[in-house]
Amino acid sequence: MKIILTAGGTSERIDDVRSITNTSTGRLGHAIGEQFLKACGEELETLYYLHGLRAVPVEGPNVTPVPIEGVRDLEAELKRILTEEKIDAVVHAMAVSDYMVKEVTTLEKIKSGDSSRLEGNKISSSIEDLTIIMQRSPKVISGIKKWSPDTVLVGFKLLSHVPHEELIQVGQALLQKNDCTFVLANDLAEIGGGRHRGYLIHRDGSYDTMETNEEIAEKIVQRVRQEGGKQ
Amino acid sequence: MKIILTAGGTSERIDDVRSITNTSTGRLGHAIGEQFLKACGEELETLYYLHGLRAVPVEGPNVTPVPIEGVRDLEAELKRILTEEKIDAVVHAMAVSDYMVKEVTTLEKIKSGDSSRLEGNKISSSIEDLTIIMQRSPKVISGIKKWSPDTVLVGFKLLSHVPHEELIQVGQALLQKNDCTFVLANDLAEIGGGRHRGYLIHRDGSYDTMETNEEIAEKIVQRVRQEGGKQ
Repeated sequence: MKIILTAGGTSERIDDVRSITNTSTGRLGHAIGEQFLKACGEELETLYYLHGLRAVPVEGPNVTPVPIEGVRDLEAELKRILTEEKIDAVVHAMAVSDYMVKEVTTLEKIKSGDSSRLEGNKISSSIEDLTIIMQRSPKVISGIKKWSPDTVLVGFKLLSHVPHEELIQVGQALLQKNDCTFVLANDLAEIGGGRHRGYLIHRDGSYDTMETNEEIAEKIVQRVRQEGGKQ
Repeated sequence: MKIILTAGGTSERIDDVRSITNTSTGRLGHAIGEQFLKACGEELETLYYLHGLRAVPVEGPNVTPVPIEGVRDLEAELKRILTEEKIDAVVHAMAVSDYMVKEVTTLEKIKSGDSSRLEGNKISSSIEDLTIIMQRSPKVISGIKKWSPDTVLVGFKLLSHVPHEELIQVGQALLQKNDCTFVLANDLAEIGGGRHRGYLIHRDGSYDTMETNEEIAEKIVQRVRQEGGKQ
């Protein structure tokens, strides 16, 4: 079995020393990696571990770590691996930036229609009205089943303080839009203090409910292996 | 001897899941921490290690780690320690955000003078022209000698691809403005591939030149101890 696991967060550079990052710790992705190693043993031929720069490493003889900085890196690495090798499943736990930096300017320039650029590789610290204009990132997840239609795909959706029904609906929509096999939906309001509630949504709309990081990791690995066996 | 060492980078929250961070790895700060432990032995009563969330830990019986997220946290912790205890030296290697988030809005709202806020704890991923307006952070370093006038202070200045003379001048200006004892000036163009050139500028304008992280750490610890002995 060959698996790609993505974990942690991407970061998008503003200049040589500043980035916009997702604050993901990568703990859930790490737990999933450890669980694959534990549950699959020698069945696991390769675990490609595509991880953000802050993520905790997963270590083992069959683990190939691939450090990822921005959304473009992630897209390139996923495409490369998925088009070169037969991958059984992609577990896409990484918090991918929805936005990339389009332009760094000032409020004054925007209001006066001045489109000249700020100069230098490191933005001066003396600007009173520094302003960062963002653009939407490519949706990397939407490429996965195009590059490799038979791969089991687990998508992730993290929301913040929404009603339960909305969380499940948004998870289902992500599943349908990207042809996921499962989507793990979770809410920041239900994470913390050793607890991490997660809902693993299936194609038929039903879902498993888990209460901790470890339970989520176990359930995902179990479902991925069952699904792999069906193919 | 009691020392405060700051290392790594601060991050400023945009919303519940996104931050603007300094990309500092904290490697130099870490090397300085290790060198204090090695060179001072039992002379070192306490090393307060104020570190960004990505920084490598410094571990030892006399080390008190203090995790720091944003500029406001850093300011509060420095002020608390410096006003409660007699601290011999502050080595301020942390890359502190020059800017904090003032407002998250859209380009459309700015241009049309619409000052209404975006809603929600996590910004929607479907905005075409997301725009972040920044404001300058308080200069935390300027408080250090006010809170504790007799403490030896080592400031840091990292620039990117500037002429050598400019680097030294900017370092000297930082030293004078904040009443530093020394300033370590360095340039991203001279860092990488195992090399890290640094210039430790003294009050009289002269400077030591070092070629690696370890040399910089050794020189800073040596100069701080000499300076402490004079008092």
